[in-house]
Amino acid sequence: MATPHTEPFDAVEVIRAKRDRATLTDAQVDWVVDAYTRGVVAEEQMSALAMAILLNGMTRAEVSRWTNAMIASGERMDFSGLSRPTADKHSTGGVGDKITLPLAPLVAVFGVAVPQLSGRGLGHTGGTLDKLESVPGWRAALTNDEMMAQLDDVGAVICAAGAGLAPADKKLYALRDVTGTVEAVPLIASSIMSKKIAEGTGALVLDVKVGSGAFMKDLDMATELARTMVDLGTDAGVRTVALLTDMQVPLGRTAGNALEVRESLEVLSGAGPADVVDLTVALAVEMLAGAGRPTPDAEVRAALADGRAMDVWRRMIVAQDGDPDAPLPVAAHRHDVVAQGSGVLGTLDAYAVGVAAWRLGAGRSRRDEPVQAGAGVEVHVRPGEPVTAGQPLLTLHTDTPERFDRARAVLDGAWSLADDTGTVAARPLLIDRIG
Amino acid sequence: MATPHTEPFDAVEVIRAKRDRATLTDAQVDWVVDAYTRGVVAEEQMSALAMAILLNGMTRAEVSRWTNAMIASGERMDFSGLSRPTADKHSTGGVGDKITLPLAPLVAVFGVAVPQLSGRGLGHTGGTLDKLESVPGWRAALTNDEMMAQLDDVGAVICAAGAGLAPADKKLYALRDVTGTVEAVPLIASSIMSKKIAEGTGALVLDVKVGSGAFMKDLDMATELARTMVDLGTDAGVRTVALLTDMQVPLGRTAGNALEVRESLEVLSGAGPADVVDLTVALAVEMLAGAGRPTPDAEVRAALADGRAMDVWRRMIVAQDGDPDAPLPVAAHRHDVVAQGSGVLGTLDAYAVGVAAWRLGAGRSRRDEPVQAGAGVEVHVRPGEPVTAGQPLLTLHTDTPERFDRARAVLDGAWSLADDTGTVAARPLLIDRIG
Repeated sequence: MATPHTEPFDAVEVIRAKRDRATLTDAQVDWVVDAYTRGVVAEEQMSALAMAILLNGMTRAEVSRWTNAMIASGERMDFSGLSRPTADKHSTGGVGDKITLPLAPLVAVFGVAVPQLSGRGLGHTGGTLDKLESVPGWRAALTNDEMMAQLDDVGAVICAAGAGLAPADKKLYALRDVTGTVEAVPLIASSIMSKKIAEGTGALVLDVKVGSGAFMKDLDMATELARTMVDLGTDAGVRTVALLTDMQVPLGRTAGNALEVRESLEVLSGAGPADVVDLTVALAVEMLAGAGRPTPDAEVRAALADGRAMDVWRRMIVAQDGDPDAPLPVAAHRHDVVAQGSGVLGTLDAYAVGVAAWRLGAGRSRRDEPVQAGAGVEVHVRPGEPVTAGQPLLTLHTDTPERFDRARAVLDGAWSLADDTGTVAARPLLIDRIG
Repeated sequence: MATPHTEPFDAVEVIRAKRDRATLTDAQVDWVVDAYTRGVVAEEQMSALAMAILLNGMTRAEVSRWTNAMIASGERMDFSGLSRPTADKHSTGGVGDKITLPLAPLVAVFGVAVPQLSGRGLGHTGGTLDKLESVPGWRAALTNDEMMAQLDDVGAVICAAGAGLAPADKKLYALRDVTGTVEAVPLIASSIMSKKIAEGTGALVLDVKVGSGAFMKDLDMATELARTMVDLGTDAGVRTVALLTDMQVPLGRTAGNALEVRESLEVLSGAGPADVVDLTVALAVEMLAGAGRPTPDAEVRAALADGRAMDVWRRMIVAQDGDPDAPLPVAAHRHDVVAQGSGVLGTLDAYAVGVAAWRLGAGRSRRDEPVQAGAGVEVHVRPGEPVTAGQPLLTLHTDTPERFDRARAVLDGAWSLADDTGTVAARPLLIDRIG
């Protein structure tokens, strides 16, 4: 009814096919993505289709075609003119996940260019651009020419994705966000991979997070997502591997924009929390291998210890008008959350910490909301570490102290002491590797 | 995100609950229907929810609450001031289904008032109002006062449902129509029953059609729909029964507006096709029993034979400004579809005949399209009847002869001769009774 007669398909016909568990034809997929981008398929039609996809799934061929249709909705970038190979990383999002910040300069040290197109935070996970914007002067928006020049010169760039890349995905993501259709593996996979493939990276490492603080709460779904994305990348000629990593506990000791930049600088100085360092190094090793520059773990670590990665970081910040020596913003108010008992910390829930940081002002609820650079959560004790009654477990930071109550509320019951034996079920950070 | 903070729920939360197979709470159902009617829940959110309901289903309690929420979105009528009991009939729609036309006056003969709020056709099944509008002068729109007066005086009224009845359903139906979510049993049942309960009838007989020409192609789904609607009616204090009836073959010998009025007049004259008469009488018997006036089949038939039902028909038409003696419109062009072989007709596909009538101009593709009063299909031979090569099987009627080609196309292969034994699998008209 809503589809003009000049169109080759009817939107209702395509929705019904997926609703009734049919496999969409290539022509149907191409048409529905293109017609949605053009506004011929209406928002309410695409949301019904997205729900049918979420509940009935897609074949590998369908996801692949859907991804290609989203790529075809916009422009493609081309890094083949660069003097270096390229490698990129994508994380499905977690609490305290600042890995991109030390990782991009670290990989660049070894002659591999890292074109990291990033986003802003929405909900309880932070956004890389929000974090970097706490560095005074730094700007996220670059032209394609600026990006190319910086990749050739510095070797690493973290910037906002231009509007021209996979516009169908931009439109669809906004729709999924308000229609309960975010958690569909085929749609998550095609959303991520359409941008990464259109971006033109030669190698890609996916960090698929599993646990309370991740979008994927369960391992089966995370594995399915990782496998789907690796297949999509491989089919498109991008050397792609995925690491499945734990997100039951926050990464490192900070969640919040400037707080995470500070922790990243510790890592770039050869220190920092072991889990952040280990994951940064593991991802760097994969990216370098994917880009044809295999480098042993120890050599990668050395580039953190001897300041080479920090040098690239400083050049990367300066190239985007940031001042690497300016003091980072600090929140106006702090509140300590204090341990009530003594022993060994057993759990610290990533999701609760993420929501607390969000409520303190580190994240946004609407796309156009500003974030507080200084807001967030500092973690003083991580699972497995000793704790004494009266000791601060967490410090909450915000510019707007009326936010403390709601942040504290979500942290109620978010940690526990280990059982009588004093043992903590050790959760490995690296769960699996797919590729 | 799209839901203002003053609302008790978030649309995404409700969508996710149904998506993940949870049972919606009463408060969630009340809110989402009301908020959708107010425009707070957006069209794209309701379509995602509708798809989740279609694929994941609803419990009896959920459907009941949903129906009540749709009733609460508008006004309720009250027939308790009438001097007679009320009974209504609803058909889920079929090809050649003109039963309402002879049925309403027939039931009124026995002192039961029939407030038949009807709709227009969309797609391959006709609309009762479209049929009656082929009677010169007849008008579908009545005020509530006019309707009450006619029920008290004549005892039968067939008119358009006012906009005040279940406005949530009106909005939701238009959405389902363009989003592939029409075929959800809970949504079909609540759509029908919200209007019938709000209308305030004391008894209700449902004619649930099964077969190629019906919305429900399979018996299990039709049975589930019938059972769901009977439960909803019963829960709301309406004495409700459902007949499951065959819609593999068109009802009677006509599909099209004036053609069906003509056939209805034959039935009201004590003649007409046996299947139309039998179904009219069966439904009348159920309606009278439901209204507390049980009447034997033979007595009901007598009111067709002796002209009492025709008298009520004439008064009913006159009360709505129609001229019962005016000649009915006739299409300007006819085309005979001729039998190629001899034998006994085995099948005649209701869906194909319905689409042919639609394409000839009897139906509409968009809500605001006009229909042709004279267009449609005449059936000369029904399954089980002998046919001779060269004899007309069907006559197609239209004012616009360029429509013949597309109508003929859908009729290709729509009938067949019976097999060598000459036997036709007898399909009973009445398949089941639920209530």
